[in-house]
Amino acid sequence: MTSSRRAASISIEGAAVQLSEIATPAALIDEARMTRNIARMQERMGALGVRLRPHVKTPKCIEVARLQEAAGADGITVSTLKEAEQFFAAGFADVLYAVAILPAKLDRVLALRRRGCRLTIIVDSIIAAQAVAAKGRQENHKLDVMIEIDCDGHRSGVDAESDLLIEIGRALGDGASLKGVMTHAGSSYELDTPAALRALAEQERSRAVRAAERLRAAGLTCPEVSVGSTPTALSCASAAGVTEVRAGVYVFFDLVMLNVGVCGLDELALSVLTTVIGHQPDKGWAIVDAGWMAMSRDRGTQRQRTDYRYGMVCDAALNPIDDLLLSGTNQEHGIVSRRDGLADHDLANHDIARRLPIGTQLRILPNHACATGAQFADYHVLTRAGGVQIWRRFSGW
Amino acid sequence: MTSSRRAASISIEGAAVQLSEIATPAALIDEARMTRNIARMQERMGALGVRLRPHVKTPKCIEVARLQEAAGADGITVSTLKEAEQFFAAGFADVLYAVAILPAKLDRVLALRRRGCRLTIIVDSIIAAQAVAAKGRQENHKLDVMIEIDCDGHRSGVDAESDLLIEIGRALGDGASLKGVMTHAGSSYELDTPAALRALAEQERSRAVRAAERLRAAGLTCPEVSVGSTPTALSCASAAGVTEVRAGVYVFFDLVMLNVGVCGLDELALSVLTTVIGHQPDKGWAIVDAGWMAMSRDRGTQRQRTDYRYGMVCDAALNPIDDLLLSGTNQEHGIVSRRDGLADHDLANHDIARRLPIGTQLRILPNHACATGAQFADYHVLTRAGGVQIWRRFSGW
Repeated sequence: MTSSRRAASISIEGAAVQLSEIATPAALIDEARMTRNIARMQERMGALGVRLRPHVKTPKCIEVARLQEAAGADGITVSTLKEAEQFFAAGFADVLYAVAILPAKLDRVLALRRRGCRLTIIVDSIIAAQAVAAKGRQENHKLDVMIEIDCDGHRSGVDAESDLLIEIGRALGDGASLKGVMTHAGSSYELDTPAALRALAEQERSRAVRAAERLRAAGLTCPEVSVGSTPTALSCASAAGVTEVRAGVYVFFDLVMLNVGVCGLDELALSVLTTVIGHQPDKGWAIVDAGWMAMSRDRGTQRQRTDYRYGMVCDAALNPIDDLLLSGTNQEHGIVSRRDGLADHDLANHDIARRLPIGTQLRILPNHACATGAQFADYHVLTRAGGVQIWRRFSGW
Repeated sequence: MTSSRRAASISIEGAAVQLSEIATPAALIDEARMTRNIARMQERMGALGVRLRPHVKTPKCIEVARLQEAAGADGITVSTLKEAEQFFAAGFADVLYAVAILPAKLDRVLALRRRGCRLTIIVDSIIAAQAVAAKGRQENHKLDVMIEIDCDGHRSGVDAESDLLIEIGRALGDGASLKGVMTHAGSSYELDTPAALRALAEQERSRAVRAAERLRAAGLTCPEVSVGSTPTALSCASAAGVTEVRAGVYVFFDLVMLNVGVCGLDELALSVLTTVIGHQPDKGWAIVDAGWMAMSRDRGTQRQRTDYRYGMVCDAALNPIDDLLLSGTNQEHGIVSRRDGLADHDLANHDIARRLPIGTQLRILPNHACATGAQFADYHVLTRAGGVQIWRRFSGW
């Protein structure tokens, strides 16, 4: 796997590649922006005195993870065992699999660990803890385990104040190695003021730390306290008691994060290159070759302060075209129309076809970089040196 | 490409494979249901006396297309040139690329045609028609072209009554071969009564036929009249003047089509196999390992008569569990909760963990089969013989 990926990272740097030579639709990374995003988060974690364990589920790309590692990241977070396997094959050995382990997946976890991967799994139930401990005793191999804490009612995890927390720790017993607690303030995506984000970040921190203190008070080991989401990582006032922070989407940022308020428009590093293929002049529509298959069906800005429909329309140089939106999508068709809903003929000129002739390349900034990236098998990276590189990304489980 | 796909079609038939041996999440095809769906559409087209040209963008799977061909389908429809290339490599030579051609993509079209693919392209603008004709003269190779008709204001195409229609036909001139007209009543997805569907099907038919008549009256050739969408194909009262019908999603059907009213629940052939990985008993939630990465972000039933959120929850044998829905998703987490929004404790019993213990396999029927299928690299096919086969599907452009 590794060798084929390496071989696929074709550098066409210096070959004076123009955007017009890239077949559309294509997922473009602006490397300069991404590099700044990586540096920004790493500097912030350095100032807070905590390790950064990036969540690689956003880019699923070895080259991106290498840039994060080079900037100072320590270990990676994954959302699937396939990510663990692919990144381990590329040399990333310290991996946190941040989805509650299903007992049926333990054989795959063990296989990775026996090959040298320092893979940590998480549990949030006694059933899973017992299964992990039983497997550890059966296989004579203690697995590294963190207990997932629910800090905001968002999804999974156990309450920091619950009896269940201690019971899970005890259920692991001598069959596993309790490495710590982890939590994810996923509800941060629903906020959009600095004060609310700061408060949630503090809640995330304090509940994770509290859970660790309760485990320790119960006589259990709990060296690690892992927290994080991009919005809380960029909003927290303190990381006291925290040992590591996880964040993923900050690498690219996206329109959801713009609405949350943790990035500026000039930090959005992922866009979809598309081309105008037709018009409906009476409606003021340009039809482009990026439908939902390219953008994903993610409508994450639908309930936020600004609804960008399927994405913000920019010119090929990534300058926003403020009066337009990618207002609709079918599988391989996108509809670019006026944000105000007016057709151009309402404005007494039918100019959409003149403004955006067939063949015009546009770049669409996506609602949700994780979902849009997942629609592509590779990224076209516009490098700082002015060239284009193709970096593979992978999918699946 | 073909040989690797063939090699990947591993039959484990007869090996008594249980669903519990399939790693989750996985995309399952119920072959018996799919085969009935294929037969139903083919029989209907036979009764109407028209050819069926299935749209392979839904399954993107050679094996599925072979079943359609064996049932009587004549040619295929594709939404990307990659589909054209992949299916041609597998022996499908009669291909309609049903997205308005971008002049920059003509070299790829020509390359396919020179290898023997009878690839037809479509145009809906003078600019594109001129580019196609110029390319044909330059390359001394007349391309087969259809003109796209807008029959319902849904997306692209030209009005059947417009001067533009004739101008496009003339712009092709002697540089291309005008093969006919095609249209797609995409707005049929927004309807949900037999009368409205029948009316739209008639509108689709009559406008396409009218466009062909106008072209012929103008002295242009127009042998083919191609129409279709799954809802209109299953609702039309007449196909007079039509030569072929295109439809895609009928192979699998989905919850959107159930709401439209053109299929029954026992015709939904695609489901996502998932496993319970945790619970939030106080909320009445079971957490499963199918998030939006497995289901897609498609919320196509959101504005229909019944909103199924991210999908209908069934047991492993595909029996619906009527009081539950896949109500929310994150990237690799799904939340199964009560359809009525009540937590089980509101019903004086905390039974979600007892009803759906960790390790329980569920099957989720998706909103939109095209979008959900696209999240997977392969299908696990539950064959009529009781075995399991793995069929590859592909993505990308």
